[in-house]
Amino acid sequence: MDTKSALLIGRFQPLHSGHIKVIEEIARDFNEIIIGIGSSQESHTQKNPFTAGERVTMLKNSLDSLKNRNNNFKNFNYLIIPIPDVNNNSIWVSHVISLTPEFDVVYTRNKLVTRLFKEAGFVVRRQGLYDRGRHEGTEIRRKIFEGKRWEELVPKEAAEVIRKIGGVERIRELS
Amino acid sequence: MDTKSALLIGRFQPLHSGHIKVIEEIARDFNEIIIGIGSSQESHTQKNPFTAGERVTMLKNSLDSLKNRNNNFKNFNYLIIPIPDVNNNSIWVSHVISLTPEFDVVYTRNKLVTRLFKEAGFVVRRQGLYDRGRHEGTEIRRKIFEGKRWEELVPKEAAEVIRKIGGVERIRELS
Amino acid sequence: MDTKSALLIGRFQPLHSGHIKVIEEIARDFNEIIIGIGSSQESHTQKNPFTAGERVTMLKNSLDSLKNRNNNFKNFNYLIIPIPDVNNNSIWVSHVISLTPEFDVVYTRNKLVTRLFKEAGFVVRRQGLYDRGRHEGTEIRRKIFEGKRWEELVPKEAAEVIRKIGGVERIRELS
Amino acid sequence: MDTKSALLIGRFQPLHSGHIKVIEEIARDFNEIIIGIGSSQESHTQKNPFTAGERVTMLKNSLDSLKNRNNNFKNFNYLIIPIPDVNNNSIWVSHVISLTPEFDVVYTRNKLVTRLFKEAGFVVRRQGLYDRGRHEGTEIRRKIFEGKRWEELVPKEAAEVIRKIGGVERIRELS
Amino acid sequence: MDTKSALLIGRFQPLHSGHIKVIEEIARDFNEIIIGIGSSQESHTQKNPFTAGERVTMLKNSLDSLKNRNNNFKNFNYLIIPIPDVNNNSIWVSHVISLTPEFDVVYTRNKLVTRLFKEAGFVVRRQGLYDRGRHEGTEIRRKIFEGKRWEELVPKEAAEVIRKIGGVERIRELS
Amino acid sequence: MDTKSALLIGRFQPLHSGHIKVIEEIARDFNEIIIGIGSSQESHTQKNPFTAGERVTMLKNSLDSLKNRNNNFKNFNYLIIPIPDVNNNSIWVSHVISLTPEFDVVYTRNKLVTRLFKEAGFVVRRQGLYDRGRHEGTEIRRKIFEGKRWEELVPKEAAEVIRKIGGVERIRELS
Repeated sequence: MDTKSALLIGRFQPLHSGHIKVIEEIARDFNEIIIGIGSSQESHTQKNPFTAGERVTMLKNSLDSLKNRNNNFKNFNYLIIPIPDVNNNSIWVSHVISLTPEFDVVYTRNKLVTRLFKEAGFVVRRQGLYDRGRHEGTEIRRKIFEGKRWEELVPKEAAEVIRKIGGVERIRELS
Repeated sequence: MDTKSALLIGRFQPLHSGHIKVIEEIARDFNEIIIGIGSSQESHTQKNPFTAGERVTMLKNSLDSLKNRNNNFKNFNYLIIPIPDVNNNSIWVSHVISLTPEFDVVYTRNKLVTRLFKEAGFVVRRQGLYDRGRHEGTEIRRKIFEGKRWEELVPKEAAEVIRKIGGVERIRELS
Repeated sequence: MDTKSALLIGRFQPLHSGHIKVIEEIARDFNEIIIGIGSSQESHTQKNPFTAGERVTMLKNSLDSLKNRNNNFKNFNYLIIPIPDVNNNSIWVSHVISLTPEFDVVYTRNKLVTRLFKEAGFVVRRQGLYDRGRHEGTEIRRKIFEGKRWEELVPKEAAEVIRKIGGVERIRELS
Repeated sequence: MDTKSALLIGRFQPLHSGHIKVIEEIARDFNEIIIGIGSSQESHTQKNPFTAGERVTMLKNSLDSLKNRNNNFKNFNYLIIPIPDVNNNSIWVSHVISLTPEFDVVYTRNKLVTRLFKEAGFVVRRQGLYDRGRHEGTEIRRKIFEGKRWEELVPKEAAEVIRKIGGVERIRELS
Repeated sequence: MDTKSALLIGRFQPLHSGHIKVIEEIARDFNEIIIGIGSSQESHTQKNPFTAGERVTMLKNSLDSLKNRNNNFKNFNYLIIPIPDVNNNSIWVSHVISLTPEFDVVYTRNKLVTRLFKEAGFVVRRQGLYDRGRHEGTEIRRKIFEGKRWEELVPKEAAEVIRKIGGVERIRELS
Repeated sequence: MDTKSALLIGRFQPLHSGHIKVIEEIARDFNEIIIGIGSSQESHTQKNPFTAGERVTMLKNSLDSLKNRNNNFKNFNYLIIPIPDVNNNSIWVSHVISLTPEFDVVYTRNKLVTRLFKEAGFVVRRQGLYDRGRHEGTEIRRKIFEGKRWEELVPKEAAEVIRKIGGVERIRELS
């Protein structure tokens, strides 16, 4: 059987359960996922509190745990590629291509990413929504800032990373 | 047992059997390797013919094959992180840290990388040499250019990637 | 007779009939116009939907048609120079100078461009307004987004370019 | 006695009397101050009207006058270092370190700067407030724009620089 | 008849008679030429002595003179587009496309440009050589530096620009 | 008496006694010197081993000592401004101006800097040579690398900085 790859583009600020649901959905159709971490150079801002390395760690720990827990994922492989912004949208797709192995389909919820890949002739799938209101980065960062419950909205392994690096304090001090 | 991570820094132009030997050496002491692809923005030059994405593919295919062939590597995990140059050596270590999960030791053969990580207080191990004359990027690129035998010096999966992308023609036309 | 050149700075998102009126005004006093396309690296955003190349095409097609239709423009020459932002206003004028032939006067409606050229000792003319409310990029992009009539506000050739590249859909999907 | 150095980070848009009070406070504990001018590449905007060179001149003239007037400052030395933004917060501290001599303590009122230096293990002191409402860059730029009295809020030497470079007109034309 | 466009890529350091011969060749098959000035940000070095603006002026003056002198060129249109380097070869073609109107064929003598456009699926024509030894930028810059005769190797209008801007002195002082 | 300022441009890799002689020469005609540290972003290379901050420290310590030792320098003021490269020579002068207070004359030994400031209309003085062969950065870095005597060629305070930061080892490991 041929390898079939999907590219998932997101900022993962932070990784949350909605992302995991999308990855599970992708795993049903593809045997490889390339996860592109957008705006990888950003960190320590309200909108992008976590560094690329911290986001890589959240993804790696959560996906390894998923593979250990669930036999369906035993042969599902992932790659995590930080993608720095280029400040020139018309070359962005070719920038992504230069950083990644070949892929067959693009998954994203971002309008600009959707448009850019479509203009370049790629198949773009709009990922399912899964109770979208709650599982969104903005909403989760707001809960962390306001001291509300947020741990249940992100994978256990991501919550551990956030606590270990002092992410709660970081979000509160920067806001 | 705790995870112990090593960071291996190289340009992988192309990935060759010397690199694989170093990775095997690292796998004896660590259960995780983070492979940092240096000068990731470079491609299509004599010194850096392959894109980051092409180098990621060479590494991924070769390491997955290694894991399948060899039971010792079953639980050895790898991450592959492209690292673009920053043109300011004194901030380079902190740039690498911002892109990667935590690591315990740095492996590299590059003098500048060695010096920069040492000044930042890291433990740097100089990787073993393994018949170094032949297993060097410069030498392999020269052989490809001159039409000599080079496939035996790189992992089978890397040779496949190079052929598939027209890498032999690329190196010849650019030189 | 000496060549007298004017530099016209704008973003042309998109080129509209107000711009054409300014160019006609300039053509009465000068035999050459250098059209500097500001923020040339921007595209696919709400404020800057079109690439530099698309904006060059709108300008070229519209001005060639103007020269064909109108004998007064037969000997009026134009140059179109994309000008990427430099993110440092105090060097911007010298950046523009490095990209363009010599010019005698600057035409612009932008406050910052006006101030920077004045501080550098240039003569800056504020272009006439010509029913400004309607002939503004912001207003035209809004009309396109809302599905209102916009074609009558831009030169026929610019409207053709916008339709050909799928510009209407692009603006709607990005907004 | 050993030299003890403090690093003071600010944008100085413009230098005002609140900054001078902080510098006087620092002079009681340290015999050297390194003044880092943040966002040094910015100028000619509402938020950052003055160039790095203009801000250096305001600081130099005001501090030299302070040293001449006040015997306590005779042996207090200052360095003024422009610090361009790096667009990657996680490498910013290491960028500052690469541009400055060693320092023992950081003074700043900026939340992001505070957080970044704390994560890097530095001692950060929050400078005293001194009638903060009035002595703030935003407030002073607003007064200049609205034609209200502002000279009394900045050192005499800074006001002279602002007038000499046409800073009042610049702020009004750009707003 | 449809417009057929060719893209000619060169550095034009300086424009010389070999370039004009290529443009005349292109004019036989196409009714429009887009001239892309490569490495447009470079100037005042041995290899790239002239600014983009100076190179634009050489091209414009020489081509306008050609159109006036020669009836075959009456309806041949040119566009001159400065193309700054991007330091990432794998996105360079998409960078060029974002700056230019559509073109049907690429003319260049540069190996890297040839390879990059071919990998992107474009038709690349290797321009005729026309006594190549003499009509090369390197050779002409050498003659200027050594005080030998060089004017006969460049169009009259280009020689005028070089003299007017002090180009001879510039090349001598920098070498 | 009016302040008269000179701008001295150099890379100071490292600061050496030839530089001090030039500064003493400048101090006879001017009451203020602005020292621009060129290529400030470079470090840890053979040609540019020291960071901007390390070079600032060498300059500051040596000049403060000069002022203490020698009454002629009591009222001679200095400013030290790091100047990062801009990779576009035609905007470099305007970049320097944006970072510095006003100056009356430029001192430099660099051909490119000389040419750029002359084209911009500045007075450039070629600094005296003072036994130039020995007092050159290249020569001093070579001596350090080869383990020869070099301390006598640089101010005592600069030698202290170099030893304290491990500069001798750095040069040897990088070469």
